[in-house]
Amino acid sequence: MTTDFSLPDYLDHRKKLIENHLFSYFPEETGEYGAICAAVRYSLLAGGKRIRPVLCLAAAEATSGKIEEAMPAACALEMIHTYSLIHDDLPAMDNDDYRRGRLTSHKVFGEDMAVLAGDALLTEAFRTLTDRDKMPATHPERILNVAGEIAEAAGYRGMVGGQALDVRAVEKQGDLENLYAIHRHKTGALLRVSLRAGAMIAGAKPEALTALTAYGERIGLAFQIADDMLNVEGDQKLMGKKTGSDAKQGKVTFPGLIGMEASRARAVDLVAGAIAFLDGFDEKAMPLRAIAHYIMDRKS
Amino acid sequence: MTTDFSLPDYLDHRKKLIENHLFSYFPEETGEYGAICAAVRYSLLAGGKRIRPVLCLAAAEATSGKIEEAMPAACALEMIHTYSLIHDDLPAMDNDDYRRGRLTSHKVFGEDMAVLAGDALLTEAFRTLTDRDKMPATHPERILNVAGEIAEAAGYRGMVGGQALDVRAVEKQGDLENLYAIHRHKTGALLRVSLRAGAMIAGAKPEALTALTAYGERIGLAFQIADDMLNVEGDQKLMGKKTGSDAKQGKVTFPGLIGMEASRARAVDLVAGAIAFLDGFDEKAMPLRAIAHYIMDRKS
Repeated sequence: MTTDFSLPDYLDHRKKLIENHLFSYFPEETGEYGAICAAVRYSLLAGGKRIRPVLCLAAAEATSGKIEEAMPAACALEMIHTYSLIHDDLPAMDNDDYRRGRLTSHKVFGEDMAVLAGDALLTEAFRTLTDRDKMPATHPERILNVAGEIAEAAGYRGMVGGQALDVRAVEKQGDLENLYAIHRHKTGALLRVSLRAGAMIAGAKPEALTALTAYGERIGLAFQIADDMLNVEGDQKLMGKKTGSDAKQGKVTFPGLIGMEASRARAVDLVAGAIAFLDGFDEKAMPLRAIAHYIMDRKS
Repeated sequence: MTTDFSLPDYLDHRKKLIENHLFSYFPEETGEYGAICAAVRYSLLAGGKRIRPVLCLAAAEATSGKIEEAMPAACALEMIHTYSLIHDDLPAMDNDDYRRGRLTSHKVFGEDMAVLAGDALLTEAFRTLTDRDKMPATHPERILNVAGEIAEAAGYRGMVGGQALDVRAVEKQGDLENLYAIHRHKTGALLRVSLRAGAMIAGAKPEALTALTAYGERIGLAFQIADDMLNVEGDQKLMGKKTGSDAKQGKVTFPGLIGMEASRARAVDLVAGAIAFLDGFDEKAMPLRAIAHYIMDRKS
């Protein structure tokens, strides 16, 4: 397996598997739920790297779990991520017209439906996370723990809290400490819990859970630094959105604060540190090792 | 107990109990979560009848459950209701400046923080609903069922779906069937599940759960008809918002479609029907009987 492993094939396969499941939660409807489902599907199925569900399934895999058992949590994480993008893009927030190369939700469906599509996704995430029938091999108490941790990571002490810090950060002098705090909350918490959720559902031992948590914290921050760097020098076509927008909006970023080279060095260190935490794992953690490298090397 | 029962005292006592618990979920913070917590607390603690948590606790009580055990679900229901009001009031939705006699969230904290405050409340609702430690006497599987039903009632097949129908309803000719569909989703689903959640946590027998569900469906619709009537003839001071706003906005309402007298008759029928479903219950269902009457007779 080791020599044959191809990350692009792996990511492609997992992405398709995840998207098939995501589709099934929001069926194409023509009746009374038609309008809201159309708005949700537009954003949910717009593509993207599906990095959170991929990490969730990979963590389950690395700790000898069944990936089908981790699939509801994986899908819920993607729903939460997608809702946060829809609300982020709203005129009252970042006011973005494009996302992943397509018009944003409010540009297509109107602001009111965009707010509701986000609300619907967040709510459906927790319906999915509490659906015992979809996780028959997992103890109900463990499912409750996973759902609770995901809610904590997505809520005001996590992702939403990071957003709240971010929308106010433009107004004040940015410093590195503040930037770390924003990212630890805004993107870090959900990436971190993606790994924890997969491992918890798989019934990972405490030391494995701790190692995957540490891995997740490092690649979460590396991911964000790489994002900031791509915003400076990325290919607009591959990114599907305008590059250079952070600088124009006066956003506080890693390259803006410490420069491109120091940002790159920091991200490389974080990736190496993340991989070191996988030392105790066997070849089933190969995808996690490859993903850590990919996060630095990606072009979009 | 029967002769001494005072609904105002009962409601007042329960309201205080619920509010004490709600406060504890969003502590006053001065640190990094200060801004988002302040926005959440402003709306969450603005008063209101707390009818959903009151019904949840009363259903637990009527089926011999402990009210402390139903308290997390009760609080979660109020968080979900409150988030829906914040998002409803947004300029892109109903564009209301006042709610319960105070400026709406976006008027005080800005549109971006109002969106996030709603998101935080919805997320915290599910953190609360999955917190096993707060429901020690309830089987984890039952907690999952309650959380799942609440998510379903709040999501695109329930409350959010009703909102989506509502924001588009102004554009088209309203009819009674469409109005029923909006209310069954927009307010009915969450009121219905408030009763179910309390009864499920209490371990109610199937026939009791069925009766409370039927009660909930009837008072849910009666509540909405009474709301529409109050919007026509209510006291603006007691309501804390402008009356007559529905008619001005061209909203489809019960009085608008079938007139005030037919609306009142329909609501009276629904309340009587609701109470009839409590025939098999003993004096522990007294509060539910009194609440059904109160829903028609209230002045705000």
